[in-house]
Amino acid sequence: MSHAEALPVVAPTLTAVLFGLSGCLVDFGARTRANSPVATEYGEMTPGAQAVLEELQRQQIPCAWLDELPSPLSHTLAGSLPAWVRSSQLPATIQPWPAPDACWQALIALNVGRLDGCVLVSGEPRLLQSGLNAGLWTVGLASCGSLCGLAPAEWQALTQQQREHKRGKATMQLFGLGVHSVIDHLGELGTCLADINLRRLKGEKP
Amino acid sequence: MSHAEALPVVAPTLTAVLFGLSGCLVDFGARTRANSPVATEYGEMTPGAQAVLEELQRQQIPCAWLDELPSPLSHTLAGSLPAWVRSSQLPATIQPWPAPDACWQALIALNVGRLDGCVLVSGEPRLLQSGLNAGLWTVGLASCGSLCGLAPAEWQALTQQQREHKRGKATMQLFGLGVHSVIDHLGELGTCLADINLRRLKGEKP
Repeated sequence: MSHAEALPVVAPTLTAVLFGLSGCLVDFGARTRANSPVATEYGEMTPGAQAVLEELQRQQIPCAWLDELPSPLSHTLAGSLPAWVRSSQLPATIQPWPAPDACWQALIALNVGRLDGCVLVSGEPRLLQSGLNAGLWTVGLASCGSLCGLAPAEWQALTQQQREHKRGKATMQLFGLGVHSVIDHLGELGTCLADINLRRLKGEKP
Repeated sequence: MSHAEALPVVAPTLTAVLFGLSGCLVDFGARTRANSPVATEYGEMTPGAQAVLEELQRQQIPCAWLDELPSPLSHTLAGSLPAWVRSSQLPATIQPWPAPDACWQALIALNVGRLDGCVLVSGEPRLLQSGLNAGLWTVGLASCGSLCGLAPAEWQALTQQQREHKRGKATMQLFGLGVHSVIDHLGELGTCLADINLRRLKGEKP
């Protein structure tokens, strides 16, 4: 091994992480729809959400959530999230997903200094497409988003084989969009973000 | 030559082009400053500007100009530009260059559907840095921007050697920022944009 290869590599820090709300940080299975009554349980954080937010806060990486639900509905859903995770107050005139506008506006609201190192995490294909259009790294969530669409209890009631089938199908659909990584749920996000940092270090661009 | 190699290559179309105003589309030498009286000649289009805008209009590529001069001043300067070249109406709260915000807002105002294929052309280092931060392809202008800073008559009065010296110094400064291409003036933009399209076709990202 040459001297250069033996030098420790300093991984770049992420600039910001944007999250979907329903079917990502909260509301496993994305059961909230614009006109449906919101069950209290929809506001529960999804598996892994709390731990990953704590780790991002520890690293001082700014985070925001975005959603296209009516504002009172989304703020009710977001009630269990830590206050430091910003919501995106979007102008009413904004182009809906999959236009890149909502992602750029969220980055502007976070005072992000550059696109490099910005990541979007979501289980919603239209939001992921918006992130791709905006030039972000994108991480798709297979099991807790709208493509599987099951409540936690329904998901658990499936056989291992049934879960694998649904997860595999959602994963293929998300990779079909062109997202950079697909994980099952937020519990796997830490290693996924480390992998994205490694890809950045090797010169890959989103 | 194999069959595959002989196939004609369809070059991707650019998505949008953002231009600086003073020292780029108009005001050769960027002599307008925020508090200076504006001489009428500052509003004259720079060499090559008219032809390149006509070509971009023919290709139906949306274009906008942006500047940080006070709004009445910049609109006076922009008076000679074709009306279809959009100005960027930016919120007063926006972060100044080199933050990426002004570039993203300009793309949102142009209804641009994706970052891919968006280009910024300018002779102003702080605006070029804003474009780099926003994830755009960036083209620096060496002789007509603020780095040379001479009126057309002063520029012409220089010897060939003096011009080469100033142009070379500005070019090095612009490449030092990390811009993707540096050209002398807008008359060279057509070939430069074709080169960027070729680089995109080969998979390069900005």
